[in-house]
Amino acid sequence: MSSALSLWNEGATRSAIVDFVAQVTREGGADFVPPEARIAVFDNDGTLWCEKPFPIQAGFLFARIAEQVKADPSLGARQPWKAVVDGDHAWLGDAITKHYGGDDSDLKVMAAGLLSAYAGDEVEEFAAGAERFLRGSRNPVLDRPNLGTVYAPMRQLLQHLEDNGFTNFIVSGGGRDFMRPVTRELYGIPPDRVVGTTVALEYREEDGRGRMYHTDKLELFDDGPAKVVQIWSRIGARPIFAAGNSNGDLPMMRFATDGDGASLALLVDHDDDKRDVAYTAGAEKALEQARARGWAVASVRDDWKQVFID
Amino acid sequence: MSSALSLWNEGATRSAIVDFVAQVTREGGADFVPPEARIAVFDNDGTLWCEKPFPIQAGFLFARIAEQVKADPSLGARQPWKAVVDGDHAWLGDAITKHYGGDDSDLKVMAAGLLSAYAGDEVEEFAAGAERFLRGSRNPVLDRPNLGTVYAPMRQLLQHLEDNGFTNFIVSGGGRDFMRPVTRELYGIPPDRVVGTTVALEYREEDGRGRMYHTDKLELFDDGPAKVVQIWSRIGARPIFAAGNSNGDLPMMRFATDGDGASLALLVDHDDDKRDVAYTAGAEKALEQARARGWAVASVRDDWKQVFID
Repeated sequence: MSSALSLWNEGATRSAIVDFVAQVTREGGADFVPPEARIAVFDNDGTLWCEKPFPIQAGFLFARIAEQVKADPSLGARQPWKAVVDGDHAWLGDAITKHYGGDDSDLKVMAAGLLSAYAGDEVEEFAAGAERFLRGSRNPVLDRPNLGTVYAPMRQLLQHLEDNGFTNFIVSGGGRDFMRPVTRELYGIPPDRVVGTTVALEYREEDGRGRMYHTDKLELFDDGPAKVVQIWSRIGARPIFAAGNSNGDLPMMRFATDGDGASLALLVDHDDDKRDVAYTAGAEKALEQARARGWAVASVRDDWKQVFID
Repeated sequence: MSSALSLWNEGATRSAIVDFVAQVTREGGADFVPPEARIAVFDNDGTLWCEKPFPIQAGFLFARIAEQVKADPSLGARQPWKAVVDGDHAWLGDAITKHYGGDDSDLKVMAAGLLSAYAGDEVEEFAAGAERFLRGSRNPVLDRPNLGTVYAPMRQLLQHLEDNGFTNFIVSGGGRDFMRPVTRELYGIPPDRVVGTTVALEYREEDGRGRMYHTDKLELFDDGPAKVVQIWSRIGARPIFAAGNSNGDLPMMRFATDGDGASLALLVDHDDDKRDVAYTAGAEKALEQARARGWAVASVRDDWKQVFID
């Protein structure tokens, strides 16, 4: 037995991954894929790191929003400022869950408020703030720092793919510029291979220097079919491996597995309420499609020997 | 004397490049830049390959437009179809030159017509067509195939940077999806590191398969400040080296050289009408700024021992 995926229990899912990698890397084999076409895409929130009780980036936004309310208390009566200052994480979490269920009303209210939070930041300033938050904050329900909520078996999988000539990309509904400062360290993925949700940027030459700023306009919410469009835009190839955990990952898992050669889709199923936070909300269609299409499903409870990195 | 840039004549420009690379790679030196921050961006048309008498992609579009006029002869009375079927390359070339001079009127007429040419193509189909054209076509005034109009000293520079731990990106006004099929072979640059002008893409699940299509909507004309926005969007870092040849490259050359550490901008000056096609139209401001800011200028006539690849 290969030790490459030592954090995965033996079983159908581990075998599906090991066999797929062996299949596409066997020179002269019928399913051989040259290294330049070994493209793998990974969702981030809920796939590579924990997204409960709310995505890590939400905490970053809450911190700025609390500052805004302090400066202008009247904001505290309106959503999403109200939910943030009241610590009403249920409203915020539900907004995202409702989105996956097809109801975007609360998400739009949330987005409009949140987009204002970092507008006007120069990109380097935003990156420094994101990195400070990521390194200094903790998950509110798990007894761990946020950067300690990376799923260890998934990180091992990233490494296994890289060792076998794959190029890994993140294709996430989370903010591209929020993740970038830590993806190389956490996942071995440099900033140019991070695809995510974006606000529009603006370039201005000011004070004798070319500067780039975040605006308050949402450019692209990287979820669902938008993930596939971004994959072509940013990568320029149909991936042969895609991993996700929610309905919003379905189109990219479909796109990756609809190519002409060998391919694999992997769905993370959060079914372990002891070591992880268990949930299926927002993943119902993905679980159903994974079964219907024979995709690999990683059960946190049954397939992972260890959940989080040390 | 280092042989790394053997196709460059000794002189101020070659020295500026060699010294810059030595400076940022000298471990322990004051200007050392770690490999992950050694980001270099290159314009393509007129910088890495010849763009005269018109950009190579124009020929690709003309071929399809001729087919359209054959199917519907009434189109032949309107621009840009008229210019294409009359072989009026001056009108087409002038449209681009006028754009660099600040007058977009003809470029817009041209763009509207040209955008319709490949709308509805599936992305893989478009890529195959672009590759066929690139491999099978010739430059109309130089006695060479189009893929033979790559500037040999620039290709050598790409290699020199890569050998010194740089990561090279193309940031071009040309079509991203048009260049991608050949950039790895020509420049060692994979598709995910090709940034360029784009039409909007659309993802649809049809005939039991996830498919991506080109639409007739211009998404982004990658020129001027848009190049800088795309650099942050796609790369997520301020480059330390930028090479271009026209006014449209100025903002990215400015952005690259306005960082805190060592940096270099290189402007290709097409001043050799014997071995290359000489022109300064569309590069006036760039030449002026290069002088004012002390950027390196590569004179085709004086700095390059050989112009095109063999």
